[in-house]
Amino acid sequence: MRNEIKGLNEECGVFGVFGVPEANRVTYFGLHNLQHRGQEGAGIVTTDGEHLYQHRDRGLLSEVFADPSDMERLVGDAAIGHVRYGTSGHNSINNVQPFLFHFHDGDIAMAHNGQLTNAVTLRRKLEDNGAVFQSDSDTEILIHLIRQNIHMGFMPALKKTLNMVKGGFAFLFLQKDRLIAALDPNGIRPLCLGQMPNGAYVVTSESCALDIVGAKLIRDVQPGELLVIDKDGLHEDRYTDDTKLAICSMEYIYFARPDSIIHGVTVHSARKQMGRLLAKEQPAPDADMVIGVPNSSLSAASGYAEAAGLPYEMGLIKNQYVARTFIQPTQALREQGVKMKLSAVRGVVAGKNVVVVDDSIVRGTTSKQIVRMLKEAGAKSVHMRIASPPFRFPCFYGIDVSNRAELMAAHYSVPEMCKLMEADSLGFLSVDGVVKAINVPDAGDAPYGGLTVAYFNGDYPTPLYDFEEGYLKSLNEQEKRARKERLSK
Amino acid sequence: MRNEIKGLNEECGVFGVFGVPEANRVTYFGLHNLQHRGQEGAGIVTTDGEHLYQHRDRGLLSEVFADPSDMERLVGDAAIGHVRYGTSGHNSINNVQPFLFHFHDGDIAMAHNGQLTNAVTLRRKLEDNGAVFQSDSDTEILIHLIRQNIHMGFMPALKKTLNMVKGGFAFLFLQKDRLIAALDPNGIRPLCLGQMPNGAYVVTSESCALDIVGAKLIRDVQPGELLVIDKDGLHEDRYTDDTKLAICSMEYIYFARPDSIIHGVTVHSARKQMGRLLAKEQPAPDADMVIGVPNSSLSAASGYAEAAGLPYEMGLIKNQYVARTFIQPTQALREQGVKMKLSAVRGVVAGKNVVVVDDSIVRGTTSKQIVRMLKEAGAKSVHMRIASPPFRFPCFYGIDVSNRAELMAAHYSVPEMCKLMEADSLGFLSVDGVVKAINVPDAGDAPYGGLTVAYFNGDYPTPLYDFEEGYLKSLNEQEKRARKERLSK
Amino acid sequence: MRNEIKGLNEECGVFGVFGVPEANRVTYFGLHNLQHRGQEGAGIVTTDGEHLYQHRDRGLLSEVFADPSDMERLVGDAAIGHVRYGTSGHNSINNVQPFLFHFHDGDIAMAHNGQLTNAVTLRRKLEDNGAVFQSDSDTEILIHLIRQNIHMGFMPALKKTLNMVKGGFAFLFLQKDRLIAALDPNGIRPLCLGQMPNGAYVVTSESCALDIVGAKLIRDVQPGELLVIDKDGLHEDRYTDDTKLAICSMEYIYFARPDSIIHGVTVHSARKQMGRLLAKEQPAPDADMVIGVPNSSLSAASGYAEAAGLPYEMGLIKNQYVARTFIQPTQALREQGVKMKLSAVRGVVAGKNVVVVDDSIVRGTTSKQIVRMLKEAGAKSVHMRIASPPFRFPCFYGIDVSNRAELMAAHYSVPEMCKLMEADSLGFLSVDGVVKAINVPDAGDAPYGGLTVAYFNGDYPTPLYDFEEGYLKSLNEQEKRARKERLSK
Amino acid sequence: MRNEIKGLNEECGVFGVFGVPEANRVTYFGLHNLQHRGQEGAGIVTTDGEHLYQHRDRGLLSEVFADPSDMERLVGDAAIGHVRYGTSGHNSINNVQPFLFHFHDGDIAMAHNGQLTNAVTLRRKLEDNGAVFQSDSDTEILIHLIRQNIHMGFMPALKKTLNMVKGGFAFLFLQKDRLIAALDPNGIRPLCLGQMPNGAYVVTSESCALDIVGAKLIRDVQPGELLVIDKDGLHEDRYTDDTKLAICSMEYIYFARPDSIIHGVTVHSARKQMGRLLAKEQPAPDADMVIGVPNSSLSAASGYAEAAGLPYEMGLIKNQYVARTFIQPTQALREQGVKMKLSAVRGVVAGKNVVVVDDSIVRGTTSKQIVRMLKEAGAKSVHMRIASPPFRFPCFYGIDVSNRAELMAAHYSVPEMCKLMEADSLGFLSVDGVVKAINVPDAGDAPYGGLTVAYFNGDYPTPLYDFEEGYLKSLNEQEKRARKERLSK
Repeated sequence: MRNEIKGLNEECGVFGVFGVPEANRVTYFGLHNLQHRGQEGAGIVTTDGEHLYQHRDRGLLSEVFADPSDMERLVGDAAIGHVRYGTSGHNSINNVQPFLFHFHDGDIAMAHNGQLTNAVTLRRKLEDNGAVFQSDSDTEILIHLIRQNIHMGFMPALKKTLNMVKGGFAFLFLQKDRLIAALDPNGIRPLCLGQMPNGAYVVTSESCALDIVGAKLIRDVQPGELLVIDKDGLHEDRYTDDTKLAICSMEYIYFARPDSIIHGVTVHSARKQMGRLLAKEQPAPDADMVIGVPNSSLSAASGYAEAAGLPYEMGLIKNQYVARTFIQPTQALREQGVKMKLSAVRGVVAGKNVVVVDDSIVRGTTSKQIVRMLKEAGAKSVHMRIASPPFRFPCFYGIDVSNRAELMAAHYSVPEMCKLMEADSLGFLSVDGVVKAINVPDAGDAPYGGLTVAYFNGDYPTPLYDFEEGYLKSLNEQEKRARKERLSK
Repeated sequence: MRNEIKGLNEECGVFGVFGVPEANRVTYFGLHNLQHRGQEGAGIVTTDGEHLYQHRDRGLLSEVFADPSDMERLVGDAAIGHVRYGTSGHNSINNVQPFLFHFHDGDIAMAHNGQLTNAVTLRRKLEDNGAVFQSDSDTEILIHLIRQNIHMGFMPALKKTLNMVKGGFAFLFLQKDRLIAALDPNGIRPLCLGQMPNGAYVVTSESCALDIVGAKLIRDVQPGELLVIDKDGLHEDRYTDDTKLAICSMEYIYFARPDSIIHGVTVHSARKQMGRLLAKEQPAPDADMVIGVPNSSLSAASGYAEAAGLPYEMGLIKNQYVARTFIQPTQALREQGVKMKLSAVRGVVAGKNVVVVDDSIVRGTTSKQIVRMLKEAGAKSVHMRIASPPFRFPCFYGIDVSNRAELMAAHYSVPEMCKLMEADSLGFLSVDGVVKAINVPDAGDAPYGGLTVAYFNGDYPTPLYDFEEGYLKSLNEQEKRARKERLSK
Repeated sequence: MRNEIKGLNEECGVFGVFGVPEANRVTYFGLHNLQHRGQEGAGIVTTDGEHLYQHRDRGLLSEVFADPSDMERLVGDAAIGHVRYGTSGHNSINNVQPFLFHFHDGDIAMAHNGQLTNAVTLRRKLEDNGAVFQSDSDTEILIHLIRQNIHMGFMPALKKTLNMVKGGFAFLFLQKDRLIAALDPNGIRPLCLGQMPNGAYVVTSESCALDIVGAKLIRDVQPGELLVIDKDGLHEDRYTDDTKLAICSMEYIYFARPDSIIHGVTVHSARKQMGRLLAKEQPAPDADMVIGVPNSSLSAASGYAEAAGLPYEMGLIKNQYVARTFIQPTQALREQGVKMKLSAVRGVVAGKNVVVVDDSIVRGTTSKQIVRMLKEAGAKSVHMRIASPPFRFPCFYGIDVSNRAELMAAHYSVPEMCKLMEADSLGFLSVDGVVKAINVPDAGDAPYGGLTVAYFNGDYPTPLYDFEEGYLKSLNEQEKRARKERLSK
Repeated sequence: MRNEIKGLNEECGVFGVFGVPEANRVTYFGLHNLQHRGQEGAGIVTTDGEHLYQHRDRGLLSEVFADPSDMERLVGDAAIGHVRYGTSGHNSINNVQPFLFHFHDGDIAMAHNGQLTNAVTLRRKLEDNGAVFQSDSDTEILIHLIRQNIHMGFMPALKKTLNMVKGGFAFLFLQKDRLIAALDPNGIRPLCLGQMPNGAYVVTSESCALDIVGAKLIRDVQPGELLVIDKDGLHEDRYTDDTKLAICSMEYIYFARPDSIIHGVTVHSARKQMGRLLAKEQPAPDADMVIGVPNSSLSAASGYAEAAGLPYEMGLIKNQYVARTFIQPTQALREQGVKMKLSAVRGVVAGKNVVVVDDSIVRGTTSKQIVRMLKEAGAKSVHMRIASPPFRFPCFYGIDVSNRAELMAAHYSVPEMCKLMEADSLGFLSVDGVVKAINVPDAGDAPYGGLTVAYFNGDYPTPLYDFEEGYLKSLNEQEKRARKERLSK
């Protein structure tokens, strides 16, 4: 869906609940409101206190659970669920989470949002010790590390393991008698805690998943935290104290749903504020109106319009019926491609000077098509305003931007980009503007107001291990190829 | 989808093209932009000048053409297509259009948007003469009437037939060597003419379907017109001169896509203007902000905000992943029902006095849920403002509001409705406001500015025949039951 | 399935029951035992005394009713069902029976096995009178004829109609309060009457469909009979007395299930007797063993072995898992084609002189492949013995052998055929042998012992109308093409 | 399918080929002829010398490869494939083979037919060392053992591993540059070697899979053998010399296709000979005819008829269209259950004394239904003759007879069984009769003529480890439950 437009994909969303009847359906509805975080696969594991039950498959949540009997089998009052953006590889059902592992001393399920920066290194070491992997997922590494240390007991083994993996991660574990949640030491990926009317605790990626199941947001899970929920309630613990908040700014800018509240900030409000600051930093003096790129940029666009004192109009329409199975235009009809998803509203933009607000630019192809589409619809001039800074550096924490080669801003200056997309002007919000607009209340003295802005300035909050310049070169050829393939699948 | 929220459904959208390579795909893309007019079935018939080729099925366009080979078989350079809102009856594939009829003297395909007011009467007469119907559709009546008069020749028979059927209709016909379009004498349903870069003519329900295939809007088809398009180009003809424009106002208010232009008026602009006039007619003095019900009310809401000088905010989110196959909440989880589709944005509305702009109220159930949802999210007060008058009378021209029993405004006064939906205040736009906001340029001296506003005031632009009080009573029991069933299916 | 091997297809099987709880399931199980008569489509219509309920689709019975809810909807205690061999045309769901027609004076469903010889003529006349056909089926003609005469009352109109249609036919009709069965004046297609333990009557194509539902065979429906079954029981009537038994001999030779009893003769026994007579007429002096072509020729083969005093062996195996969706061998692997369905048993035939008994030869391609397969498996010699005469003339009564061009025996002498199929010898049973082996007890003085043997000697029991030499030539070009297409679809 | 009738299921069939274009399709066709060995899942892994490509899913081969693109992706000139009888557990796709494992030092795929008797013990040990299993399959144990010893090099690690696993097994491995086959030290499961016209080697469970791809049978793989096939051809090796032939007698009796040749004996011929010896050991003096239970008992039945000098008739018909999705009779219609699959031929058996030959009796339910069905069809007496000894002991080598509780002969004497199934007499072939009828030429001095007959006399050819009395008792509760579940799934 939008990922095809933007070329920017979240890896996943997670949802866990403990102590509620029909935990399967509660999780299903929770995942429903996380569907924007991943449309390629979904799954749920439940427990009735004795056994764990799993159903997962590729596709949208509604496709995965198209057969009601698959839902019926998931009995019990605790569950974890997962939606996944992921590979198109055909057997990638192996990679669809939650994973479920059977051991003679008890079963365990896992769901994960994020990416490890030392996954290759760890996996290599594990394989050298005889480990057999079934998926290409970072997530599986964790269970192998735990099992290598299981003689210590599960919780000590888990804590040790969480100190061995690096990067951005939000993990949920389900055992027959408890739900466990863990967040990386920088809190890069979002994870929050809620409570249902009956007292059952919920842990999930975004607060919008709490709303749909009638749960109240308690607080965000903190960097380095390890929460255990069982029949005795919530046990708050930590696996490390070496933490510093650096939440992914792209969650506010693009990924999260507008109604989610992350670290005290409503996403819609943050976006609207970005739009307002953008209007100040990058005015468009002769414009007649402001339009947004639907749907993720509408908040910022209305903020820009408000601050600029311009009318906010609907100049672009998004077709809500675009499906995976859509027939694509042939070569001869190719130029109508983007129009499958977006249409310009001729009656609105014809003869006008238009400000288009978009939340971000990744590959730049969409921006170019939008400009062209608006001009074909009669716009006199098109001024692109981007409510975030130029996206110049890859993410290694769970956003799927595989390499710098695809990042337009990594290769071109702003004037060059403006020319390439045939816009009449182009302006970006500054890093400082992003920080001010979001204004995380509990950031303390964390750099960049507690945000990860590495995509814009290259200042990563963690070491990069496998992704350090030169590291991958040191692997042998076969492993590099395999790694590459897995990443590209 | 939205039909489930609103209980208000368009019957169909049509698209026809003559003289372009890959007419099948051109039609597919055209229908793609008409999908909002019907999600229950879709079909395309093409011709290569010799034969007619058909594919149709229940479901969304992308589902109907999920197997690419179904598209490949539709060869030729002329086509008509159809998207349908319709029955859930299992064999309703019989009712999915375009219909294709084989005769020894040539095949013909038909697609139809609208409803006849004398269908029961005509069908009864035809059956008494030996006619065998296969569908429950009004559309099939037309072909029987034509065949009864085929000895006159096809075009005379068609003209005679078009004068026999009453109500609102936009018909497309495809024969091996021509495309024919006909519009009812009041132009109740929208139909427009466009032209592709290669000169091929397109006739379709909305101009947004022209945009996606790169066609230019030429003009709206006029009441009583009969257009014939063949290898020699466009032949403009009429089957009657007894016409008076009365285009369905609900197209502007709710059905049409915001980017469509109907009789010279851009739908988004009409809606925004309705919002502005609504702000004048029904102010909300102490409000803090204006929010719209996504997606159809966003234009009106931004118009209201602009005119009222209030901030326009995103207080309701629509989940874009709601699918036909979605698992429904159980009894115990029922109250979360509407939240599957809509969520309130707590961080935006908490503690605020909120104006909610909706385009129309049919059954009122959604409005009530919206009010409750916003209050649960902390809104201090909720002021419902509806950008059209109370919907009090059924439509007999192709909008699926089967009877008055379901229409909230047919049974309750505005204060009663306000109380029922637990809103702090409720206000509607006047009929006059609708007429002024839309302001059809070529309405001449037609009543209500060339609009059908019968839903609001009961002043129908045509005789009602089958639907006259008492008429159905005169049918025998069996037929009434059958008729009722067909309507209810 | 076997149709692909043989190129010889039955048109259909029908099943009707009146007065039993769960008539839908009873019909389903009945059709299950008729599945060999048609694998391309299936359907059931039931009635609860008030309404008629239909479900039908393309595919095997188990595919058509894969969703149990489709079965649940078919309420009532009377039903008719149909399995169909038919076109691969994509929209051929229009042609899947039973057909269900709605009229203001009552609904009617129809199911048909057979073919009319004056269908083109009748349809042309009906269309000239304004009739609109939706299917390409002969069956639909009947309902149009009935409706043209409905003013006479239904039963008189039906009788009149049955006298207008010519050819081979077994019709079932279902109305809300009765089940009607009619057989052609020659009894060409099989149809029998049975009774369930609760007294409910069943009418169906073969007695094997009685066995599965626990019904007892009462008798065969007779030529010209018209049976009406309602709440008062069975009413025996006739629409004509101008009858003469001429049941299709291919039912005994190939189509019917071995356990069915037709006109008092068990099919397996008739086949075994054909094998015995074949051994006398066409001995194979030096043979070591007899093998049959599975599955339809096993009875005849064991009869041949018994009469010849030779061992009966399993020299050919049929793979029971061949499915519609099977991947076909590529060009390079093509010669393994037939082996997908049949395999020679090397360990049995190697070094042996083998008699292969097949029930019939149509196109001859399978025979050739069988000979080659056996020789590749080491058979010293292969003697083909066919338990029926050379198939030289097309059938116009419901067997799908579209034209003489495909009939090997229409173009080659027996020695030529033997050479073409590379057999060491080839022998056929005589027409007289067929008549003697089947030996219909109640044939009276009907020619050929009450059998249709026109496929072997061209002596058709009815006039051929549309199929007379020269008739089709008199139709105009377009109609001929259309007709041809419909037949070839 | 037949498994539901018999309650006796083969675990799998394997097929491997190295060095042929389109190895994917060759494997597909080979698996097609092994489909009788497993209908619950299928898969293929290919290699192009660089990478391994996998497709697998639950269902019949034709269902698994219903989408041709899944076949297209499997490029390369070497492949292994697998058909599986298996669990109905929903996620059992994890258990569908071939398994594919990725390691930094190279990928490996595995396919397995058989069962290990020390799987629980080995798995427990591996888990204690940190191993993480994804499937419930014995097969996965092998790869973990290999990886624990991978420092020795792959082939030494494999040989060591093959000496650690006990029971009956036929393994195929595929690496990017070779195909490896290994058979257990008793040759319990069948495995044979063939060669295609181009010289490519094939290793597969049954020779009928060689026939379909045009390969010639070279020889059976021998107990303890380890074959390696690479670009240099076939390398014959052994991993142990401590071997003794004990091939599963049930392969000859029931599982294998009649056209397969196992250790020099054609299965059909063995069965026919069993039928002949059965006639001698267990005559039926007053019988009128012999009939077989289709399809697996037809060879034995014709052998019995021949030896007894009785006519061989078709008294039972098997419906070939029974599908997984078939609607089942309701409670009220239940007694028609078996008739879905089998029908008695009334016209053949009425008034006759009938000998019914079946290959084996497991639970006995089918036998009872057959007797009843024949008597209802009018048989005067029914004499059951079983072409194998009473099945009294479970199999631990890959036949799915989970426990003795289900084995009729484990609980009842022959006269008791006769009474329970309401037959007029019942007789079994002796163990000695089985050994004599099969008469394996290369058995040497192996007990029971080189056959495993433990099912009949409890004399297992290997130690039973996990299955020893009392062993499972020693596991802790949780593990036992888990083990039990896995087995029962």
